[in-house]
Amino acid sequence: MDGQIEPISNIAAELNRLPGIGKKTALRLAYYIASMPLEDARDLAVSIWNGRKAIRFCECCGNYSAGELCAVCADEKRHNGQICVVRDPRDVSALERLHEYSGLYHVLHGTLSPMDGIGPDDIRIRELLDRIETEQVSEVILATNPDVEGEATAAYIARLVKPLGPRCTRIAHGVPVGGDLEYTDDVTLVKALEGRREM
Amino acid sequence: MDGQIEPISNIAAELNRLPGIGKKTALRLAYYIASMPLEDARDLAVSIWNGRKAIRFCECCGNYSAGELCAVCADEKRHNGQICVVRDPRDVSALERLHEYSGLYHVLHGTLSPMDGIGPDDIRIRELLDRIETEQVSEVILATNPDVEGEATAAYIARLVKPLGPRCTRIAHGVPVGGDLEYTDDVTLVKALEGRREM
Repeated sequence: MDGQIEPISNIAAELNRLPGIGKKTALRLAYYIASMPLEDARDLAVSIWNGRKAIRFCECCGNYSAGELCAVCADEKRHNGQICVVRDPRDVSALERLHEYSGLYHVLHGTLSPMDGIGPDDIRIRELLDRIETEQVSEVILATNPDVEGEATAAYIARLVKPLGPRCTRIAHGVPVGGDLEYTDDVTLVKALEGRREM
Repeated sequence: MDGQIEPISNIAAELNRLPGIGKKTALRLAYYIASMPLEDARDLAVSIWNGRKAIRFCECCGNYSAGELCAVCADEKRHNGQICVVRDPRDVSALERLHEYSGLYHVLHGTLSPMDGIGPDDIRIRELLDRIETEQVSEVILATNPDVEGEATAAYIARLVKPLGPRCTRIAHGVPVGGDLEYTDDVTLVKALEGRREM
């Protein structure tokens, strides 16, 4: 970041490493931070550092957690026999926002991707199977993303889970609500037709 | 930021206070920070806090500076009798990027704006006049923004500076290079015509 004084170019360089924050945005933010009252800049820095330090993984489901167990796993009412399997903690937060699902989660922290050298032992599949053996699990909902890796991961897990007893379900593919048939890609349209339901 | 664990919602809330960072972006960044290695999160926090602490104002021109004088004021070669008057430190950085201007700066830290209660005593006009009296100043280049407040501020300063001796100039208005006459607003076109030069 040429032509800037060092403190500003340092801030900009660090912000530039965040996703979606390009050089120009990073510099604009660095200048804004330079103009902030000292205590506001401290609050920002402290929230990042203390926040990051406080984040750990739930020992049961692998979600982000402030304590040993995340809020979902710690809630007795959520132990209803359902486990929803997702890739990332942020998928949990997307599903929790709906206030629709009342079971537990299992965060894989990745999806199978032989191209990137990510195999079954690199994501939390073993932990899922352990949970199925020790907890009362009636249904495993596979909610990995509807992309190649997500589908492969869901298929792989289903093959391992079914012999253990629980139902295995996959989230529905179809036309997004508010979408337009004309602009929906062919694969999605085929899935939407296949997945049609009685009205 | 509902449904998030506290450390993540704290980070998101602080990031949300930055300009151009909405709730969704703040949350996305907070999740990214949560997934960062601990030392990277520390580097980010430390750069913000140490950076902000290290930033002070140049005692001469008012630009951001790491020391008593900014790099421009500290450079003897830049004392050529020209002072370029701008609103913000970031305007200095925009002009320095060009490597075209070889004089000094004066940062007003604002523009006159009676609507917002900002009068001549609230921005660094007094300091500019002091500099003209003590330094050898041959030209004051008024480079405030070409908006209502910027024009009014430039006109106000010119009226005070001219009796003291230096030339007063204003940056040119006109059609931006690469722009299109058809899509240029009328006021700019009028200024471009008025400011025409021999070829």
